[in-house]
Amino acid sequence: MNRKKLKIVKIGGEILDSQHELEKALDFFAQLQGNKILIHGGGKEATRLSVKMGIEPQVIDGRRVTSDKDLEIVTMVYAGLINKRVVAYLQSFGCNSIGLAGVDGNSILSEKRKKINIDYGWVGDVVEVNSTLIKILLEQNITPVFSAITHDKKGNLLNTNADTVASEIAIAMSNEFDTELLLCFDKSGLMTDITDSKSIVSKINFNIYNQYIENGIIKDGMIPKLKNGFNALENNVNRVIIGDYHIIKKNCTVFTELFI
Amino acid sequence: MNRKKLKIVKIGGEILDSQHELEKALDFFAQLQGNKILIHGGGKEATRLSVKMGIEPQVIDGRRVTSDKDLEIVTMVYAGLINKRVVAYLQSFGCNSIGLAGVDGNSILSEKRKKINIDYGWVGDVVEVNSTLIKILLEQNITPVFSAITHDKKGNLLNTNADTVASEIAIAMSNEFDTELLLCFDKSGLMTDITDSKSIVSKINFNIYNQYIENGIIKDGMIPKLKNGFNALENNVNRVIIGDYHIIKKNCTVFTELFI
Repeated sequence: MNRKKLKIVKIGGEILDSQHELEKALDFFAQLQGNKILIHGGGKEATRLSVKMGIEPQVIDGRRVTSDKDLEIVTMVYAGLINKRVVAYLQSFGCNSIGLAGVDGNSILSEKRKKINIDYGWVGDVVEVNSTLIKILLEQNITPVFSAITHDKKGNLLNTNADTVASEIAIAMSNEFDTELLLCFDKSGLMTDITDSKSIVSKINFNIYNQYIENGIIKDGMIPKLKNGFNALENNVNRVIIGDYHIIKKNCTVFTELFI
Repeated sequence: MNRKKLKIVKIGGEILDSQHELEKALDFFAQLQGNKILIHGGGKEATRLSVKMGIEPQVIDGRRVTSDKDLEIVTMVYAGLINKRVVAYLQSFGCNSIGLAGVDGNSILSEKRKKINIDYGWVGDVVEVNSTLIKILLEQNITPVFSAITHDKKGNLLNTNADTVASEIAIAMSNEFDTELLLCFDKSGLMTDITDSKSIVSKINFNIYNQYIENGIIKDGMIPKLKNGFNALENNVNRVIIGDYHIIKKNCTVFTELFI
């Protein structure tokens, strides 16, 4: 059977912090032909708002916690300001899009992370992506644009990792589509030497990923980002690419592709 | 031809400022059978956020202006915090709903109000309601929940009057549905004497409305609210009712009904 293609693009915080970069990335995205979904992260806007409101970030054992006030702020900034701003740009570029949070149409159901040693507060782990609404929108040529605010169906909104949301959406959509997951961040790909722009790893498999973690080449935020990518590949996503927002363009040649 | 029925319910700021009242109103709304759409206003949350951020409301000739910063705040509060909070409640009440701003799916196109004597800033007047997306959602039993943030398709979000948005949606949907517009606010209806709860006017037509304006019985925010209601009736909306949120319940008997 000839399955339809679908690109799932995640843009990270760094792009959102520069109006120029954001417009360029969204222009590339608007020009993408065929079925596509955008997921966006947060950027520094939430931190700026917290500072203005005098809210101190809560950190327990070095890990950030989403307090009641933090949840209000990320809901306002991610699901409100950034999500609607992105959709407004896309509409102006002729891409009919719809801004969604996971609570909308019950599209991303999650559960509050259980308190074991650390209580992360209003942080959610994805339980289920309801692809029915997403498919209906794609059939109407309306592009879904997701912020990573999900819900538990008990009336609570939950702050969720945007890479995970992108990966879980890609997995859920792979039932019907040939899926390609593009995770954009501020580098052109995975680098073995952060000071050398020529050290981009063009291909990485799960074994090398684990070796690189042991060697300290892959660390911090890159670990979960790549883990989300490998998880997608293991669950029927056809292709996973990591790089800067130029990977949205068809002719981009510099990026890191994941293999299992 | 037997047309389907559709209720368009607008809840105002007063309900949004009390969690108890909001939950009750949304519980009533969730229990409504058949096709329905919710539009919500803003409440005092936006003012509270402005104060916290040290943003002074801009007032020109006694009329409030939406500055760049004000637009950011109403987008965060109306399209983000309140919209997603309302949808989260509805989901928990078993009502599958989707939170939208007018920019989403290009559902409400507006134009920036022209500067004649006063420059209102980022205020939009509705040009067109695109009912295609709304109809598709209703067919899927997904209830649209609108904040009154619209767009101009040039990349700009615009702050729009929520009563007007409700009225324009009701008008647009009247092409296919038998429509009933319920405008909820903090009173049980139009009162001839604000100090006497028994002075509710059960029926009002356009002539009496104009007389009441002349006599000073109808004034301030009630003038545009009723005007939006009469405009809806003149444009094929079948029924318009004004009252407190109990009018969402089927057996409510105290309200003001508009006639032309």
